[in-house]
Amino acid sequence: MTDKKFVYFFGDNQTEGSNKMKHLLGGKGANLAEMANLGVPVPPGFTISTEACVLYMKNNDYPDGMWEEIDKNIDKLEKSTGKRFGDPDNPLLTSVRSGAPISMPGMMDTVLNLGLNDDTVKGLAKKTDNERFAYDSYRRFIMMFSDVVLGIDTSEFENLIQQKKDELGVTEDTELDTEAMKELVDKFKATYKDKTGSDFPQEIKQQLQMSINAVFNSWNNDRAKKYRQLNKISDELGTAVNVQAMVFGNMGETSGTGVAFTRNPATGEQEFYGEYLTNAQGEDVVAGIRTPKPIKSLKENMPDVYRQLDDITQKLEQHYKDMQDIEFTIEMGTLYMLQTRNAKRTAAAALKVAVDMVNENLIDKKTAIMRLKPSQIDQVLHPMIDPESELDLLSTGLAASPGAAVGKVVFSAEHAEEMANKNEDIILVRTETSPEDIGGMHAARGVLTVRGGMTSHAAVVARGMGKPCVCGCDGITIDMKKGQFTAKGYTVKEGECISIDGSEGKIYIGEAELKIPTVSEELETMLQWADEVRKLKVRTNADTPEDATLAREFGAEGIGLCRTEHMFFGDDRIPVVREMIMADNKEDRENALQKLQPMQKDDFLAIFRAMDGYPITIRLLDPPLHEFLPKYEELIEKVKKLESEGGSQEEIDKVNNLLRNVSALTETNPMLGHRGCRLGITYPEIYEMQVKAIIEAACELTSEGMNVIPEIMIPLVSNEKELDFVKKTVTQTAESIMKEKCIDISYLCGTMIELPRAALTADRIAKGAEFFSFGTNDLTQTTFGFSRDDAGKFLPLYIDKGILNNDPFAVLDQEGVGELMKIGIDKGRSSRPDIKIGICGEHGGDPESIRFSYEAGLNYVSCSPYRVPIARLASAQAVLQEEEED
Amino acid sequence: MTDKKFVYFFGDNQTEGSNKMKHLLGGKGANLAEMANLGVPVPPGFTISTEACVLYMKNNDYPDGMWEEIDKNIDKLEKSTGKRFGDPDNPLLTSVRSGAPISMPGMMDTVLNLGLNDDTVKGLAKKTDNERFAYDSYRRFIMMFSDVVLGIDTSEFENLIQQKKDELGVTEDTELDTEAMKELVDKFKATYKDKTGSDFPQEIKQQLQMSINAVFNSWNNDRAKKYRQLNKISDELGTAVNVQAMVFGNMGETSGTGVAFTRNPATGEQEFYGEYLTNAQGEDVVAGIRTPKPIKSLKENMPDVYRQLDDITQKLEQHYKDMQDIEFTIEMGTLYMLQTRNAKRTAAAALKVAVDMVNENLIDKKTAIMRLKPSQIDQVLHPMIDPESELDLLSTGLAASPGAAVGKVVFSAEHAEEMANKNEDIILVRTETSPEDIGGMHAARGVLTVRGGMTSHAAVVARGMGKPCVCGCDGITIDMKKGQFTAKGYTVKEGECISIDGSEGKIYIGEAELKIPTVSEELETMLQWADEVRKLKVRTNADTPEDATLAREFGAEGIGLCRTEHMFFGDDRIPVVREMIMADNKEDRENALQKLQPMQKDDFLAIFRAMDGYPITIRLLDPPLHEFLPKYEELIEKVKKLESEGGSQEEIDKVNNLLRNVSALTETNPMLGHRGCRLGITYPEIYEMQVKAIIEAACELTSEGMNVIPEIMIPLVSNEKELDFVKKTVTQTAESIMKEKCIDISYLCGTMIELPRAALTADRIAKGAEFFSFGTNDLTQTTFGFSRDDAGKFLPLYIDKGILNNDPFAVLDQEGVGELMKIGIDKGRSSRPDIKIGICGEHGGDPESIRFSYEAGLNYVSCSPYRVPIARLASAQAVLQEEEED
Repeated sequence: MTDKKFVYFFGDNQTEGSNKMKHLLGGKGANLAEMANLGVPVPPGFTISTEACVLYMKNNDYPDGMWEEIDKNIDKLEKSTGKRFGDPDNPLLTSVRSGAPISMPGMMDTVLNLGLNDDTVKGLAKKTDNERFAYDSYRRFIMMFSDVVLGIDTSEFENLIQQKKDELGVTEDTELDTEAMKELVDKFKATYKDKTGSDFPQEIKQQLQMSINAVFNSWNNDRAKKYRQLNKISDELGTAVNVQAMVFGNMGETSGTGVAFTRNPATGEQEFYGEYLTNAQGEDVVAGIRTPKPIKSLKENMPDVYRQLDDITQKLEQHYKDMQDIEFTIEMGTLYMLQTRNAKRTAAAALKVAVDMVNENLIDKKTAIMRLKPSQIDQVLHPMIDPESELDLLSTGLAASPGAAVGKVVFSAEHAEEMANKNEDIILVRTETSPEDIGGMHAARGVLTVRGGMTSHAAVVARGMGKPCVCGCDGITIDMKKGQFTAKGYTVKEGECISIDGSEGKIYIGEAELKIPTVSEELETMLQWADEVRKLKVRTNADTPEDATLAREFGAEGIGLCRTEHMFFGDDRIPVVREMIMADNKEDRENALQKLQPMQKDDFLAIFRAMDGYPITIRLLDPPLHEFLPKYEELIEKVKKLESEGGSQEEIDKVNNLLRNVSALTETNPMLGHRGCRLGITYPEIYEMQVKAIIEAACELTSEGMNVIPEIMIPLVSNEKELDFVKKTVTQTAESIMKEKCIDISYLCGTMIELPRAALTADRIAKGAEFFSFGTNDLTQTTFGFSRDDAGKFLPLYIDKGILNNDPFAVLDQEGVGELMKIGIDKGRSSRPDIKIGICGEHGGDPESIRFSYEAGLNYVSCSPYRVPIARLASAQAVLQEEEED
Repeated sequence: MTDKKFVYFFGDNQTEGSNKMKHLLGGKGANLAEMANLGVPVPPGFTISTEACVLYMKNNDYPDGMWEEIDKNIDKLEKSTGKRFGDPDNPLLTSVRSGAPISMPGMMDTVLNLGLNDDTVKGLAKKTDNERFAYDSYRRFIMMFSDVVLGIDTSEFENLIQQKKDELGVTEDTELDTEAMKELVDKFKATYKDKTGSDFPQEIKQQLQMSINAVFNSWNNDRAKKYRQLNKISDELGTAVNVQAMVFGNMGETSGTGVAFTRNPATGEQEFYGEYLTNAQGEDVVAGIRTPKPIKSLKENMPDVYRQLDDITQKLEQHYKDMQDIEFTIEMGTLYMLQTRNAKRTAAAALKVAVDMVNENLIDKKTAIMRLKPSQIDQVLHPMIDPESELDLLSTGLAASPGAAVGKVVFSAEHAEEMANKNEDIILVRTETSPEDIGGMHAARGVLTVRGGMTSHAAVVARGMGKPCVCGCDGITIDMKKGQFTAKGYTVKEGECISIDGSEGKIYIGEAELKIPTVSEELETMLQWADEVRKLKVRTNADTPEDATLAREFGAEGIGLCRTEHMFFGDDRIPVVREMIMADNKEDRENALQKLQPMQKDDFLAIFRAMDGYPITIRLLDPPLHEFLPKYEELIEKVKKLESEGGSQEEIDKVNNLLRNVSALTETNPMLGHRGCRLGITYPEIYEMQVKAIIEAACELTSEGMNVIPEIMIPLVSNEKELDFVKKTVTQTAESIMKEKCIDISYLCGTMIELPRAALTADRIAKGAEFFSFGTNDLTQTTFGFSRDDAGKFLPLYIDKGILNNDPFAVLDQEGVGELMKIGIDKGRSSRPDIKIGICGEHGGDPESIRFSYEAGLNYVSCSPYRVPIARLASAQAVLQEEEED
């Protein structure tokens, strides 16, 4: 004998457990106890503790005294309900359910109506005055017991039902009458005997023992073990078993059942929201045969019950300090609560409920901040496909840029612009996009590509534009010649309508209804609270004044990455840029650069104006020069066409010259090629032009009284001497202009840390760099040796096989890339303690990566404008999570 | 007054310094003192210490007592020589030279003949009975003094000489007679006065003071400061000043001057070797107007002097324990030694001298090992261009693979093979090479490419083959259509002869004479001594049985990298490899693999046989599959050609199908793409085939009694889960074959560490890996973010500007890549303390990188066969250097 307690009663003012005993009673048992403690009417019952399960597993035998305790609790339960196990007049029926400390699918779920046998079924019939219901319950119990306790395939029983229906010439279960049910009970019992070699147990305690035994064993079934392994749940926890009196909502017009929410789960409005059915069981609500009534009508129907229910749900919300989702049953006028839990809700509702609850003094601001998932802000800010839409799914790709869009399919950027000019909504569909497609992407409502990952050109640009985008959708095949694409047997011609959901990565055929949300007052409030808490600054990646303005509206505190090359792609610029690239000598190159300089200056004037008073990190030219030239294959085609169509020799020569240049600049691995500061070192005049444009613009606006804070950033540094070399150009150019204009601009000069070597030698680099910005896109590429343009060929398989948990271009790889960042931060601060450090890769907008950035001690994160609100919330949550853990 | 001593006398048995006082007396002064101490006749003199210089710099004044000490030493010198400063009958003439502790160009060099004035010149004339000589010496002194002491431009004086020659209608200085010399002396003095405002100093002590002062000040001239800065020499060292009595070899037939070596500097033979001129000064030997006589003839000419000289040089060699290079002068029958230093020598001589000196008990083995530069072994093993060859230099590129070759230019691999079959010597000239060129490279005597760095395909393969190669020679332009290349205005047509020097990176037009060295007994001996000392194992990178055999002959102790992909390029294999790549499904792919398997097995059988008893690290397939397909551009051309020449539709379809496959496999950055273990994960059947071939071959040979030690290496791992995944395939395949054959092979399974993330997470990876091999080629690419195929566009400039000291693909970057290696080693050993770690990148054959590898604690290095002897020597030196530093 042991003096340990294994069984805990709940209900009828005799509750022994509470919500704090989840570890011992499991989630379900603790929650039932908690409700009972609050005085909420729950059907009474008892919980067999997880400890009993653990001992059973360990010793392969029940712990001493457990069955005695169960017997005592059955007595208690019989007294409490006034019913008795096996009593033919007033039988006690119970449910048996598993309940682990952590919710865990894959284990034995539920046996209902335990307590029925050939005798008690008659009592139930008499008591409910419904013989058909009683036998129906009995045959369901036999089937459920056979299935979950003994593992007999349910199809055995379903076939029998089908035979009976065929025999009677009916199609629905509801059309089977009492006689049929009785016959089915007999046949089910026969099947049971056939499969097990024993009669279906008539002894109720045997039914119960077998069920409890099945729950314990289900802890170690394959599905449960696999689930625990995948979710890193200890095998030592064990499961509890809940035995609870059944209540019936189908005992006539004073009975009923329903589900309700303490607030509207779609909008968050403060209203009692739900539905119910009279004379029905829970499964009837789910089956959808009868249409439930709104909960309000219960007020008229059973005013006392309604008032009681309203009181109880309010009490539960106050107690749990969160919106509740409850299940209840009314048995002959008596209300029973079967379940309460924190309610699932839409993003809009989550936001409103959190803010309202602070205003109601139910929770504090910090709790409110933690209630919202950062990703939910995406849903609040972007159009969504109406969940009611019933369109056919064409294909699935990567959720590359959130939001949804509807439009006509167009396969080229040029055509996209034409159509958009005619006010057509279009979706640009490309194998992959390149900088030349930017005009078309801008004109489109959304973008769909066949290739490319989360940081492909299409994905990055679309996120920057706040446009929905699905990338790497390799289920579709484009046939440019025929002007169509195919997927899943569908053929979609240019001009036909599709809908894309960039939050889910889904493509539908046809026009979906879109829901367009507006930035709510609640979001403003929530983000202000987040601002009070967070310590990380939030900047934006913006290359245009429009983006800069938008980002400021979203709360950005500066620009963390202004890519100057995007400015080179304008229609008026690209010819000059090409002139510069194709210059044979320094003089010609400088001439072309002189033409570019006033254009760049205008760009900076506009961006500086939009960001007045905030720092702006400007990255000097980064991509390899061939990105500004047409593609080799295109030029080959062009020459072919000119030749066959009799183009002039002059024209042909011109294209051939371009072709030669493209060929000379071609690189095997452009990502690791002649780009970044390597350009600035081989052609110092390019960076000189850019610095001139920056400083001249800054001087001009400073003299107008504006506060311009430029931070000049050198890309792709691997070696402190590269930085020193380029910095000399920067400093000399800046000094000479400031001297000329007699204005002093307090600009900074710093560097990207985007190569492993830069992180490893950050102490040396920091001597020359006034700030660091981690370029985690490139750093991820080089740390893993993954080309983001090519990784699509194996990354999906890697994630599928569990080799990687996430796409490292979307979620920062803390073990590898993060380790290098930590080395870089430590070394950088060792030689320049006050160095400002930020992150401007795509990870700057990812909540998990933001948390890492905060913990690693960064000063700011920078992300695309639409992700600024997410970053504000996520950085506040990072602070609160840290406080929680301390 | 201070009691410090500032001046040290040497010569005439009164020497006060020694070789150990270099810091105080400078290199030159200490060496003169050392010779004097040995009883070697040196012209006497004295050294003013570096300390005096330092004090002078610090206080901007001469230290107290210095001049008094100098005066006393002048007295001593006068007594010792029997001559006196300013004595018109027997004047003392001296040289004044600077002499820092570390040899340092850029400082004041030499003033000769100090002590001449209008009086003493007459005494010199009388004493030498050569008035012309006396006035020539005087005018030289004025010119040298004006130049080095006062900075007067020598052109001032040279113009005067020219005028005089014009006036006399002669062309050579030697044609100027005594009168002319006297006139020049007057004119030189006038120029001096004109430029300085003072008369040329007639007071000898003033001449000396001014000279000493000039030497001190030259310590801080711009050139000297710059030199110290660049070479990290402390500014605090100061320079010494040497004042030494002049001796003259041009005082008649009993005078003379010469240079000699204690052994033959070209061959190392033990013979007294050198040349001399009678009645001549040192500069006459250099000027080459008279032909010097071999030193042997001195034996007949002046037998006593010869015997004395022979004794002295032998004494010097015994004393310095190294071959000496000496300068001497005979003044009227008296021998003076002017200089002795360790002699420069050829690689062959260095080797022979070092081995001989051990056999002579002059030095120990360790000293001998340290005497040879590892790079000298290259010269001993490879053909060299005869230094006497006088060919025109066409261009310079990277010294990618050592040795020299001569042959006819050929622009395609196919053509190269054809020509070689006709026994033509050819040089393959390509823009860059690809795996398809291997046959042609094999057929060629040497390889020249326009693009690519030290680890480009051409460089790596050529080094593997031991063939001379010059890479990245962007000074030449190939015109394939015209079948020619141009460089420096030359046009070289296909079939014309060029010579390439892969040790120097030079290309010459025409046929150079080649010197073909043989592996000498001395090299064998030296390498055996190295083996006794070294602790690193030396393995080889070899993909063929031929390479393996060669490497064993060179002393390799196993294979560190056997690339299986090179086996895929054989003529009989490439069609099957393509069939495998283009398979639409797993079944077709497995069929193709089944055809490949016996071929791979044969490869392994041959290599295992060649390496019986040694471990062989086999890397599973690494390169992206598109490397095995033809190039896109080539196929486009082929289709064009087929279409225009009326090829069959079937043929056209076949090429188009190939084209589609090539296009689908094209990658933006193949280096970071779908390769390495990523292939093994997406297509496990490929690795399965390879492992089968390995283990079956091992079983077969083991049953024949051989000792096969295979180490299976997984490439491009970034994550421990990749390794785990692939290792499962390896283990299962190996186990099943060993079970089938009933043979147990003790194979290992390990991984390359060639990505930053692998090094950063080496602790996790080491749990599954039984060995690590650092793939420093790829690790350098990713750590720097440099593509080795593209870096040629900026690397030369980087090295030129001092941004990098070396090509990091040739010499391991210790700060960045080395830092990652250290992290990888520490972490790897933290979870598997006995893990075997090696390096198999190109750096495995570079001496500096080998030293790093030893200090970082690696177990072995692996390099191409021809570099194995270098690695053996370098790893012995690493041990000795470490011992020295301890």
